[in-house]
Amino acid sequence: QAGISHPSWLTVNKKRNFTVKATGAINPSIRKEEAKVVDAVEVTQLQKPITAYCRCWKSETFPLCDGTHVKHNKEFGDNVGPLVLKKPKE
Amino acid sequence: QAGISHPSWLTVNKKRNFTVKATGAINPSIRKEEAKVVDAVEVTQLQKPITAYCRCWKSETFPLCDGTHVKHNKEFGDNVGPLVLKKPKE
Ligand code: FES
Ligand code: FES
Repeated sequence: QAGISHPSWLTVNKKRNFTVKATGAINPSIRKEEAKVVDAVEVTQLQKPITAYCRCWKSETFPLCDGTHVKHNKEFGDNVGPLVLKKPKE
Repeated sequence: QAGISHPSWLTVNKKRNFTVKATGAINPSIRKEEAKVVDAVEVTQLQKPITAYCRCWKSETFPLCDGTHVKHNKEFGDNVGPLVLKKPKE
């Protein structure tokens, strides 16, 4: 297709180092009304032995991870993943 | 075809919402040899009452936050911040 062969977004995107360079904002839509999105976790309040927290800014359940990082990584050639909090079973 | 042929990188980039839209990779350089960067925290091992974990992918001390999110937010008009783990003082 003509649109793909010209110096367009798609052409630039073909260079892997463009994709990897990450030269832009990383939070597309989460709590944009806040100047800085900070979340606190009281670790003693964690209910489950393992809880994954999102670092890709695309989870529907932010601050929790819902697995959307897989789609993000595939789409942009990225390699991000969650922070996993572990607590011992009682 | 219609949708692809118009917008070049530069055109799209002029719209402020492009910057905020975050349509690219978000990890510029951290552990790029790993297919997916996942970190685990044993919460019982936390030494300090408060520990901030990076979610901007630009900390020099990743997975810990070193405050670089402030620079990132300013540079790109973004609003990201760390995940803060809190444990009760003993
Ligand atoms: S959904 Fe964002 S890290 Fe998993
Ligand atoms: S340095 Fe990345 S969130 Fe603070």
